[in-house]
Amino acid sequence: MEVLIVGAGGMARGIGLRLVRGGHQVRIAHREPDKAADLAAELGDNASGEPLDSAAGAQVVILALPYEGSKEIAEVWADRLAGKIIVDISNPVDYETFDRLVTPPGKSATDEIAEAAPGAKVVKAFNTTFASRLATTGKLDVFIAGDDGDARKQIASLCTDADLRPIDVGGRKHAATLEAMQLLHMKVQGEINGNWSTALTFAP
Amino acid sequence: MEVLIVGAGGMARGIGLRLVRGGHQVRIAHREPDKAADLAAELGDNASGEPLDSAAGAQVVILALPYEGSKEIAEVWADRLAGKIIVDISNPVDYETFDRLVTPPGKSATDEIAEAAPGAKVVKAFNTTFASRLATTGKLDVFIAGDDGDARKQIASLCTDADLRPIDVGGRKHAATLEAMQLLHMKVQGEINGNWSTALTFAP
Repeated sequence: MEVLIVGAGGMARGIGLRLVRGGHQVRIAHREPDKAADLAAELGDNASGEPLDSAAGAQVVILALPYEGSKEIAEVWADRLAGKIIVDISNPVDYETFDRLVTPPGKSATDEIAEAAPGAKVVKAFNTTFASRLATTGKLDVFIAGDDGDARKQIASLCTDADLRPIDVGGRKHAATLEAMQLLHMKVQGEINGNWSTALTFAP
Repeated sequence: MEVLIVGAGGMARGIGLRLVRGGHQVRIAHREPDKAADLAAELGDNASGEPLDSAAGAQVVILALPYEGSKEIAEVWADRLAGKIIVDISNPVDYETFDRLVTPPGKSATDEIAEAAPGAKVVKAFNTTFASRLATTGKLDVFIAGDDGDARKQIASLCTDADLRPIDVGGRKHAATLEAMQLLHMKVQGEINGNWSTALTFAP
């Protein structure tokens, strides 16, 4: 499958590494074409870089951006994202206090992105997996939520290919839980000496 | 420390086993004194059983009951629980659908218990640990939330003694996250072949 990743930071790299290893074609889009090209070069022959504005066409678009950036892309690209699967990985965390989310009460970041691009099938995934951990080869749980069951299945299938364990938690309303839990995961990194490399897991 | 556990089911047994092994005195209180005595006998010399109505005095009271039962005890015992630490382990899950919580919007079970017994220091803990797993000797994460920092510390200390890893996530507002996450943990048991013995963990 061809997957477009918007962003060229740590999360784009981690997800890109997993997908390329899983046999998928990865396109990296970034405002700065050099950054996209650099990451694509690191990912290898099955990856290519392109400027943000020319990005189009992929059936699966992973917004590997911070919350505000993801919302902005969903708004600006609302038309071209219609009918496609958007993966929202964002965590709308108050990074000053690590004690609250910055989303409006009762709304997840995924809700906001879905409202900004109403024709798209929006799926929450990868918000609980730290970049450093994705970049390893170890198995990881990826929690998936969204209202389109077929879109959830497609993302789950990508995860399985990428040696990740997909956990389909159901409808989009559960994205808020995944965001709130990741806030706690981030908040206690110091307490558990987690060094931003721990993994939210339903351990056997 | 002396700990009163209200309930004699699987969770009371699992927590009781851990606390007794950790060197603490455990009192089991139950409406049916025989059930309290039976569990106490299983737990050994450092445990005793008593009828529910005579239970009093312990500084830490663990409500090892379903959500509705915990709320009821908090209401009925509101006076005698004043100044004490109450541990709420409940999961207000809709057990027909496993897709929603039955608490009012914006409120956790812990909030409701705290409102029912306003003089008590209410702490959420043990809601993400399945009974079967507590009954083993394996290390487990116990997530702790509550508005009284000293009460959280005392419960964390009990957990450490009991060979559990306490993870203090902060104020009571985070109890809702722990309840929502455990709903998902329960919901996907079939999908992950979890057999109600998996553990919500920030894995290293």
